[in-house]
Order: sequence, then structure tokens, then C-alpha cells
Amino acid sequence: MEIKPYILITNDDGIAAPGIHALVMAMKEIGDVVVVAPDSERSAVGHAITLSDPIRVVNFNKNSLWSGFAVSGTPADCVKIAVGALLERRPNLVVSGINLGSNAGINVIYSGTVSAATEGTILGIPSVAISLTTYTNPIFSTASDFAIKIAKTVLTKGLPKRTLLNINVPNVPKSEILGVEITRQGMANFAECFDKRVDPRKRVYYWMDGQKEDVYAGDDVDDEVIKKNKISITPVKYDLTNYEFMNELKSWNVEI
Amino acid sequence: MEIKPYILITNDDGIAAPGIHALVMAMKEIGDVVVVAPDSERSAVGHAITLSDPIRVVNFNKNSLWSGFAVSGTPADCVKIAVGALLERRPNLVVSGINLGSNAGINVIYSGTVSAATEGTILGIPSVAISLTTYTNPIFSTASDFAIKIAKTVLTKGLPKRTLLNINVPNVPKSEILGVEITRQGMANFAECFDKRVDPRKRVYYWMDGQKEDVYAGDDVDDEVIKKNKISITPVKYDLTNYEFMNELKSWNVEI
Repeated sequence: MEIKPYILITNDDGIAAPGIHALVMAMKEIGDVVVVAPDSERSAVGHAITLSDPIRVVNFNKNSLWSGFAVSGTPADCVKIAVGALLERRPNLVVSGINLGSNAGINVIYSGTVSAATEGTILGIPSVAISLTTYTNPIFSTASDFAIKIAKTVLTKGLPKRTLLNINVPNVPKSEILGVEITRQGMANFAECFDKRVDPRKRVYYWMDGQKEDVYAGDDVDDEVIKKNKISITPVKYDLTNYEFMNELKSWNVEI
Repeated sequence: MEIKPYILITNDDGIAAPGIHALVMAMKEIGDVVVVAPDSERSAVGHAITLSDPIRVVNFNKNSLWSGFAVSGTPADCVKIAVGALLERRPNLVVSGINLGSNAGINVIYSGTVSAATEGTILGIPSVAISLTTYTNPIFSTASDFAIKIAKTVLTKGLPKRTLLNINVPNVPKSEILGVEITRQGMANFAECFDKRVDPRKRVYYWMDGQKEDVYAGDDVDDEVIKKNKISITPVKYDLTNYEFMNELKSWNVEI
């Protein structure tokens, strides 16, 4: 009897989002799937976890096609509580997505989608984040098909310690995809603006808004590759030490 | 006339926390200080930012000793809105803290204190996060004095692009500090547990809890240095690319 891989699926758009449904249907082709995802949208939450509030878990059923757990927490919470409390066995793979909106470049820092995959990695489970570079009119089939391919590969080859894959898929039909590139994280900033408004009670509030600056930084940068209708795979690690700077910093000889 | 450096101070324990007060009083000795901090505790929020809710800002006054802006957002929001909307000139330095609780090792990933310094760095401002390794009976003077020293040094020497300093100070009097070490981020995991309870309305909920595992990984690891009553300085970067793995990943030849 063949034992199917056990695949934990999560996201940051919430368990009712269409992207997670597309991902579940794809992963069901290659494994036993369990879904543990936020009960509502948790975008741009970074690697937040919930320590000061109780976490609630309720069953979720998607039109009898699949069921899962909806969690009153962040994507990182979902992976933690799945592995630590909800699942009876350890998943062989964590896949987070399919996110609506690119998680390339500086977005990696803010991304709930990536943070879920980071959490899987912290727990020692090979993990992948997958995002579609659009907020509207998503073409999920390209990303779903690629999710199957990369999941199979990662299940076979594994990933290095403390490293996950961050995948961004252009929102075009598969026939228009011009290749797959291994990339590095782009560093273009957001040009932010704060829209200052006054509410009906005459109190000031702000909306944060911004657009990523378009700065060319090399053909191997995630943002650049996506623009060319290629799929971007960035290996991401969570050891944030700047090793190159350690020696110079030592030469500062800061004392108490 | 000497122009004083302009120092933006924030934290994740909230603007009313004693740690930020200690830091403000220290930084006032060397610069013009502006405080923009969360209106309440925002611990373990990672690098979350607030895009789906309005952000409110109110004035805060600390016993006529200093005043600042209390923000209904995360530490990263505070730095963004300070630089993007509230301040009339660009700060020369961002200092985040003094946090109650170590931000060494894997905590760096979850830390709101560090995320504020990361945000300063993203905005091109030299930034430092400073934490005290205790939740109770804090001895702020050691960390305050060291904050002055490191702030002066960073203002003089600057920091490399995309790199901040993450500082952890043992909670002992200055006379008991045995030195200052340049460290790398420890990788010991949390051993997590989920405490399952039932509320008065018979609904299940969970509390997340955990303790960092105590695994020796070298004398130059942040957690290890702190244990020896030394101050730990880790240079932290936010380019998360695992460059070492890129070539092997290319050899996988994953295609669409």
C-alpha cells in the first residue's frame, strides 16, 4: 500500500478565500490534505503570533469538497496550532497560499503567506509559499499546476535546514509562462503615503497606502523575473544574521 | 551652534511602558527625541503592518517629562507613519525599546521591537533594537547607559545598508556586566504547548505557551552570550535570500 504524503495547507487570505480552495484541490491529487487557516483575512501580518488572546478553532466545510479548521489567529498561529494541537500526525509538507498578490521583494518581510511557510520550516517541515501576482481576475490553474510540481519535487528532495521556498507565479495562462527562475529577494522599497482623513465624529485617522518602487536590480531578482512572465522561486532563510558585518562590528570595540 | 541628532524612539510594549521612558530619558542626553509608539502593547506582532484598518494617532504626555504620539498600530506602522506623515524632518537614528524580555535567537522573527528597527532600516535610517532579558524587576540603567553608548557610535559610524543592530542586555547592575560580544542569531526553537480550555459558554479555546529550548550552538550565539552576563549585539539584515542554496536549487531544473 502506498502511503500518501500528508500535506498541511494554510494561507493568509482566510480559509474561505478562493486561492486556498484551488490549492487544496491541487494538493489532493498528490496527498492527504489537512487545512488549518485563519478564519478571516490576515494579510500583512508578518510573522505575528497570538500570545495575549485565546485562540479559537472551528470546523469549516467547503461545499462537501473538503473540510478544515478555521483559526482565530495569524498564519503562523495556524501552523503552530496545527502541529502542536490539532493534527494527529506530523505533516510531510506545508504549503501556504495561493495568495492573491505578489510576495516578492520587500513584501516577503510583511507577508503572512510567507510567515506560515517560515513557521513550518521552524518546526522542521519542508515548506513552500505560493502567490499569484494579481489581486483581481486570478488564473489559479497555472499556480495550482506548478504547486503540484514543486510539492512533488520538495517531497522527494527535501529542503536545507531553515530554508523555505517562496514562489511567485505570474497571472497568465500556463501557455504564456516563459520559464522558471531561481531568484533572490528584491530590495525595492515601498513609496508610502498616508492618506489623512476626518471621520464623522471629527477625529483624524490615516490610511496607509503605497506602491513598490520600480528599481532594476538585476535579472535574477524576483520582481524582475515575474515581469518577464516567468515563475520565480526564491530560497528564503530565517537566520537574519549579517555574517559579513560581524568582523567590522567587532572592530568597533564597543564597551559598556 | 551644535545640531543635535534627531532620534525617533518606539517600542512594542506600548508608549506607557516603563522601558520606553527609560530609553527616552537616556536619548535626551544626546539628542532631540521624538516618540511615536503603539498606544498599547503589541508584542509578538512580527513585522505586521496595518492596511485594512484606519490608523489613529493621539498625543501622549509623560508627566511633563516628554510627549509623543500614541498610534493605534504596530511598531512597524509607528516608524512608517512617523517618517511618512508625523515628523517634519527625517530622524538620524531609530531606537526601539527598551523591551521587557529577550529578543535573542528565534525571538527575532516574532519581535515587534526588532521589526520597528527593521522598518527604520528599510527607510534608510540607522536603527537599533534594545531589549532587557527579563519580564520582572527590570534594571533599566544598564540598558539605558549602553543605549547611549551604542547610539553615539552608530551616529558616528553609520550602519551598512539593510542592516540593523539587535541588542540584548542582561538584567544585572552595570558592575556585573562582563563585557560586550558581537553575536549571531541563535536557532533554538520554542517547545510549544497549547493549553486547551473551555470558556463559561462551553466553547473550546487555546492559549499558546512555550519555552525556548536550551541547546548549545556556540559561544558566539546571542542566547549563550547573555547567559554569561554579557551584552549581545547581533547585526541583523532583512535580505532573507539563502544565497548558498541558489545553485543547488537551479540544478533541480523545475519546469512548468
